Amino acid sequence: MSSPVAQAPNAAGQPEKAASDADRVYIFDTTLRDGEQCPGATMTFEEKLEVADFLDDMGVDIIEAGFPIASDGDFQAVSEIAGRVKKAVVCGLSRAGEKDIDRAGEAVKGARRPRIHTFISTSPVHRKYKLQKSADEVLELVHFQVTRARNWVADVEWSAEDATRTEIDYLCRCVETAIRAGAGTINLPDTVGYATPEEYFEMFRTVRERVPGADKVIFSVHCHNDLGMAVANSLAGVRAGARQVECTINGIGERAGNAALEEVVMAIKTRHDVLPYQVGVEARMLNRASKLVAAATSFPVQYNKAIVGRNAFAHESGIHQDGMLKHTQTYEIMTPESVGVSKTSLVMGKHSGRNAFRTKLKELGYELGENAFEDAFNRFKALADRKKHVYDEDLEALVDEEIATQQDRMKVVALTVIAGTMGPQSATLTLDIDGAHQTVQSTGNGPVDATFNAIVKLVPHQAKLALYQVHAVTEGTDAQAEVSVRLEDEVEGKSVTARAADPDTMVASAKAYVGALNKLFAKRGRLHAQQSA
Amino acid sequence: MSSPVAQAPNAAGQPEKAASDADRVYIFDTTLRDGEQCPGATMTFEEKLEVADFLDDMGVDIIEAGFPIASDGDFQAVSEIAGRVKKAVVCGLSRAGEKDIDRAGEAVKGARRPRIHTFISTSPVHRKYKLQKSADEVLELVHFQVTRARNWVADVEWSAEDATRTEIDYLCRCVETAIRAGAGTINLPDTVGYATPEEYFEMFRTVRERVPGADKVIFSVHCHNDLGMAVANSLAGVRAGARQVECTINGIGERAGNAALEEVVMAIKTRHDVLPYQVGVEARMLNRASKLVAAATSFPVQYNKAIVGRNAFAHESGIHQDGMLKHTQTYEIMTPESVGVSKTSLVMGKHSGRNAFRTKLKELGYELGENAFEDAFNRFKALADRKKHVYDEDLEALVDEEIATQQDRMKVVALTVIAGTMGPQSATLTLDIDGAHQTVQSTGNGPVDATFNAIVKLVPHQAKLALYQVHAVTEGTDAQAEVSVRLEDEVEGKSVTARAADPDTMVASAKAYVGALNKLFAKRGRLHAQQSA
Repeated sequence: MSSPVAQAPNAAGQPEKAASDADRVYIFDTTLRDGEQCPGATMTFEEKLEVADFLDDMGVDIIEAGFPIASDGDFQAVSEIAGRVKKAVVCGLSRAGEKDIDRAGEAVKGARRPRIHTFISTSPVHRKYKLQKSADEVLELVHFQVTRARNWVADVEWSAEDATRTEIDYLCRCVETAIRAGAGTINLPDTVGYATPEEYFEMFRTVRERVPGADKVIFSVHCHNDLGMAVANSLAGVRAGARQVECTINGIGERAGNAALEEVVMAIKTRHDVLPYQVGVEARMLNRASKLVAAATSFPVQYNKAIVGRNAFAHESGIHQDGMLKHTQTYEIMTPESVGVSKTSLVMGKHSGRNAFRTKLKELGYELGENAFEDAFNRFKALADRKKHVYDEDLEALVDEEIATQQDRMKVVALTVIAGTMGPQSATLTLDIDGAHQTVQSTGNGPVDATFNAIVKLVPHQAKLALYQVHAVTEGTDAQAEVSVRLEDEVEGKSVTARAADPDTMVASAKAYVGALNKLFAKRGRLHAQQSA
Repeated sequence: MSSPVAQAPNAAGQPEKAASDADRVYIFDTTLRDGEQCPGATMTFEEKLEVADFLDDMGVDIIEAGFPIASDGDFQAVSEIAGRVKKAVVCGLSRAGEKDIDRAGEAVKGARRPRIHTFISTSPVHRKYKLQKSADEVLELVHFQVTRARNWVADVEWSAEDATRTEIDYLCRCVETAIRAGAGTINLPDTVGYATPEEYFEMFRTVRERVPGADKVIFSVHCHNDLGMAVANSLAGVRAGARQVECTINGIGERAGNAALEEVVMAIKTRHDVLPYQVGVEARMLNRASKLVAAATSFPVQYNKAIVGRNAFAHESGIHQDGMLKHTQTYEIMTPESVGVSKTSLVMGKHSGRNAFRTKLKELGYELGENAFEDAFNRFKALADRKKHVYDEDLEALVDEEIATQQDRMKVVALTVIAGTMGPQSATLTLDIDGAHQTVQSTGNGPVDATFNAIVKLVPHQAKLALYQVHAVTEGTDAQAEVSVRLEDEVEGKSVTARAADPDTMVASAKAYVGALNKLFAKRGRLHAQQSA
């Protein structure tokens, strides 16, 4: 690890201060850090890059890409994202220690606009039990951590972990120290999801009034949803003068999650009359962002999730339908189109050609290279032969799988499964492993168990099945089944998730399991390569 | 339909006013009305009764059981719930028309504590486009609807639909009219999920200050979550003096849903220092209420859902785990036990006997009759023979299915399915239909399609498959698969959902589909019986 080098302040490093509009609210997305760190939401390296690229395209101002000291995988992801993101600030998280900060600095240094986000707990309960340090000791660390981070980058964000449970006088002293040491952004999180909007408003108002230099920095909100108030708290902070909102797609994150990016953005856009702020996010990409993150994490979005749930714009009851037919504004405060939900779903079929398919993919937000496009087109034709109507969701499943399986070492060649009440269920499976076909037969407790046992016979491994989910991609009994499989590798302490779609649930299951193994081995390969380097 | 009869005011009808404590907040659950009316959440008659019984046991103050004029099924459910609920007020919804109100009065009249909830739109956009009536005409209707409802019951709630988009002066006149006509509860809903907490607070403050007689009634909040602020808005209304909160389990409801009951209750209990109110709900039953409603509606609860999501109390990141080990308060503002999430999951196995099984079921909240218990125990033993560890979730799946299938006309006797890449997939199925065994063979596009085609051959019907979902009940490849099937009967315009669990996904699929058909036919039988009566 190289030692920190004092750098000239990077002019691009402090985008907030350059903004001419005092009502501009910066959207800081932490899907890849706070979101990814919640149980089961682990994404692969490739999935992280895909999400980062999408967030950048969507106009997110700051992307928190990970926690570089946490693992080599995290470091690698932050570093790779730093190198490829075109517009957004790329941020790495660190605690107050020297090694943490240096690792974060190392990870973001390749970014066009790098930021280090360094935090320390300030509340009495955290100081006493977690840090086991006095208030004065913590204050010294605040000075140290910001100073050291500033040696790496000009754009430093400092967070008072558990700020909402911190004594207000002490919190002000901490903030003053961080500002004096050179922090450009001050984040005061509601770490445990404890605050009410009134309290959160008051905290920001007081800190901004009292602390010298508060007018020179950007204040930031970071809210958790444990009591269902993350969005309202975030907006209360903004009303009190905060100009950065930390949030995640679909509201994923520790415990009950973070404030949902899509809800914060659409509240500001829809209620511009009482929330007169500007955000740079392209709202029409929100629906696709939600789907991308749901797929990468295999965290389903509940039907009635605000903005991006499948019922968010659905009206069933007679009263509402009647009102909607008379005038959409009776029950609709924003249009589905404004967040990228298309009302018309052009159905594709076996007579649809390459041009129609390409246009459709573009509409859905996919741009494939020529080879990937041809493969996807061939699979579309094969699907159209078996399935009467091919819906948008069918195509999304097909293309997502196409993208995911491009560099796989193992593929499912043939599978026959016998299931039913007679038991034991059995599976005969042929896999292509590094180009050679291998076949095996196995039994199990249920057809899925039999199929997975066959895979284990062909590809022995220690990973544990942590999640198995099936849902129909579209409606009807001939719908494609989409299967998600998550494997947990206890040795590495990491998990991978893979999805596959096929009209045959058993085939989709085998493909998803093999896909997860491919990811696991690819990940290991990368990790080992790095360790030996 | 009988005409309304003027009744002596029912002393039990106005529980709110009798309360001595001004800080008591009444919980009004509308899971069975606003929740059930959202697309896809339709519950069967039996499911509604089960939910109502549970809500009553849990200490909900008012249960809105349905919208009696909407359908015969709704009327029947409200009427049956009115007759069985022991403690809570039972409420039926109605619009402003004579028939609506009379139907609601008819439905709730058997309740120990009946209420009619009658509403009308007050906002300009609703008056103009939906009602096509002038402000004065609407005002006359307010007087009419409350007066007529009071002829049925002493406890009348009046709602100003779309109150948050209504001119404040006009809203005050409407409220005054409703109070003069005898409404005891005044509900001012944020129908379109449009308000911010500050606006919602101001509206209640203004109305309560200005309207004569406002101190004699209970004000009520009813918030939708379109911008993610339903809970914060509800609590803002309470701070402004409202003392009834309308909410739903899991926050289900039109579009983005209603304020979640569990979040409102736990916010008040956890932050009693700044929200000094009393609620009568037993919080330790919240987790089970969530599971019950999720199962009845087949609406999955997202992992990071506040209070009841499976991640709500989970801590993965090293930092948080470290803090939790040192002191739980560092990251936990309420305990999992306080909402009924048990940390220890006592694992059952093949050596567990009747007593252990009975104790376990009691812990999980089930009390079965002797026959149902014996059946459940036998199925538990059969499962324990096939599966190494039997977890709480396995038992819940097993017992839920046991309860659901007690009066079925059709049962799955035997099934053999051949699946795989070779296609066409085939299924051989034997059903017991009214006591006689019938066998058929069928092919299909995938094994599920083949199985369902076999069922259609044996039991021809027009219902459409609207949802097919599979998930593993517990972890591991030998986990039971739980399958949900929703069928939509286009003739009746209704849908039914059934679940089944089995280690063999195909067997679970067949059982779930047959279960849905049983429900559909039971429902039809009931409807036809009623129509001919």
